[in-house]
Amino acid sequence: MSRLSTEIAEQPAAVGRLVDRVTPMLPELHRALWPADVHHVVLVARGSSDNAARYAQYLFGLHHRLPVALAAPSLGSVYGVEPDFRGAMVIAVSQSGQSPDVVGVLDAAQRQGRPTLAVTNDPDSPLAAAAGQVLDLGVGPERSVAATKTYTASLAALALVSVARFGDDRRAALLADLAALPEVLSATVDLDVTAAAAGLRDTEHLLVAGRGLNYGTTFEVALKVRELSGMVAEAYSPPDLLHGPIAAVAPGAAALLVAPTEPSLAGHRELVAPLRARGAVVAALSADPELLESVDLPIALPREPADWLTPVSTVVPAQRLAAALAADRGRDLDAPPGLHKVTRTS
Amino acid sequence: MSRLSTEIAEQPAAVGRLVDRVTPMLPELHRALWPADVHHVVLVARGSSDNAARYAQYLFGLHHRLPVALAAPSLGSVYGVEPDFRGAMVIAVSQSGQSPDVVGVLDAAQRQGRPTLAVTNDPDSPLAAAAGQVLDLGVGPERSVAATKTYTASLAALALVSVARFGDDRRAALLADLAALPEVLSATVDLDVTAAAAGLRDTEHLLVAGRGLNYGTTFEVALKVRELSGMVAEAYSPPDLLHGPIAAVAPGAAALLVAPTEPSLAGHRELVAPLRARGAVVAALSADPELLESVDLPIALPREPADWLTPVSTVVPAQRLAAALAADRGRDLDAPPGLHKVTRTS
Repeated sequence: MSRLSTEIAEQPAAVGRLVDRVTPMLPELHRALWPADVHHVVLVARGSSDNAARYAQYLFGLHHRLPVALAAPSLGSVYGVEPDFRGAMVIAVSQSGQSPDVVGVLDAAQRQGRPTLAVTNDPDSPLAAAAGQVLDLGVGPERSVAATKTYTASLAALALVSVARFGDDRRAALLADLAALPEVLSATVDLDVTAAAAGLRDTEHLLVAGRGLNYGTTFEVALKVRELSGMVAEAYSPPDLLHGPIAAVAPGAAALLVAPTEPSLAGHRELVAPLRARGAVVAALSADPELLESVDLPIALPREPADWLTPVSTVVPAQRLAAALAADRGRDLDAPPGLHKVTRTS
Repeated sequence: MSRLSTEIAEQPAAVGRLVDRVTPMLPELHRALWPADVHHVVLVARGSSDNAARYAQYLFGLHHRLPVALAAPSLGSVYGVEPDFRGAMVIAVSQSGQSPDVVGVLDAAQRQGRPTLAVTNDPDSPLAAAAGQVLDLGVGPERSVAATKTYTASLAALALVSVARFGDDRRAALLADLAALPEVLSATVDLDVTAAAAGLRDTEHLLVAGRGLNYGTTFEVALKVRELSGMVAEAYSPPDLLHGPIAAVAPGAAALLVAPTEPSLAGHRELVAPLRARGAVVAALSADPELLESVDLPIALPREPADWLTPVSTVVPAQRLAAALAADRGRDLDAPPGLHKVTRTS
């Protein structure tokens, strides 16, 4: 059994522990992170953490109408410019907490007296030291190079940060949604994806499509497939895909629709016919009977959380799928060629 | 001669006319767009215009230390949420000015009394009608489906918006940089890229790498290659590429380094050896002798503008390259299969 498989299986318990541990901290997070003068949020992250940040971009918009900027860390590291964070709350997401340019952005915000948060799996990291507040993912060491449990835990941490902005009345319902997550993850984590993996075996080019809250999921699924299996995999929103990149779709290509039950589901239905007309094999991660019926390779989600938490559970069968594609190609699941766990961009 | 080739060749004059026309408007743009209570910028765009927006993300950071959020138009169109734009200036970029979800974001900002700008090639479009200020690109109809002159004109328009935030003293030097652009573009627009195109003929997968100010250029180059030639082309920053996607590089792949002379140039040098070690053919768009010498397919930029304007000229030989790759594959340059000029996302 690979470390990767073990770490994928740990996710229900890891997310459950995180939610239980952070829930009592919500009043303190409310006070420290969400003063009344915060009018936008800046997120800084790389790799899988950047995909988690995309979730926050939609979630904070949906919950709080807040614009969210994904920071450009190279502004500091390449151009020597320190952004002016007036009106901002600044969050850095990094499992290792080591990337110097990510630390640099948080450092600057802290110096400017703005509320700052580090979401990290290492509370002793330079990133944690630079931050005003720290959410320790606490999922234990992630030994596989491909991020799985640190990704879903980062999503749950960002969900808790969003909940912290609400008053007590609204919080209760959202915390009930969060409390249901471990059970949903348990039902999802052993989903059999071998049929879908077999159907995608000869794919030369995988297009992953998703939108809204699950736009970040879409990028994470593409990243996971690419880094584990070595297959070329790209992420698109359905309208962007239809606008241009569909021109490159030809037999040999496949599409994976990331379509859990939330408002962006509807946009997937119109993708199926044009993709199939160009010879692509179409797979879907969904619980929608109509969509599942219309595709070549349905992956039926057995249980789903509340809309706003679908990114946490929907990525899990895609992690399994990426691992199955990689195993099929005889690749080392725990140390795919050419990958490094920490990006030390200076 | 294709319309595409004609439109590529029109760029020096089109950008020159735009700069001349907008320069006298700078004091008015300063007053209308940059009141003292603007602490961040929200940009909304799709497709090539989204790549232009990425330029603004770096440029406004570099010039003004302003955080820039790229808006998620689906928040409105899918979730029915109107962001709270307190502290923001909001810019929409759309050559057609027709996309309803882009118009919706600007509408909301305008209703909230925030400064708004439409950058569009159609001053009679719904987008222009929704905006407080309009920058008409004025480049004439773009009949080819692939955006070229509207892209470089959008970059120049956003550069002018950035200049407008400065006082008179700083403006003069930057306007001199802008005034030099048409000559640089004229020297670049006829660059012979046939050797590079021939060297990339058998490429199955093109990785385009660039960073900082030219991160948006990198996405635009990948988009242009993909939509014109049908080749699979992906954009990455050098550190992100080294962190993960390099795992998918194998013989049959090629990389194109977008490396004009600006501070992010240095990061390209460390890419060449690992890419070649994995069997990739490496091309570079650069004026740096050392980098050009180290790659398989050098595309030497004959003239360059000031650092901050390199995105405007560096994309031009890549437009030519994409057209050459497409012609080589016998594709219709003006109406590539599967592409639509306007994304009508509702």
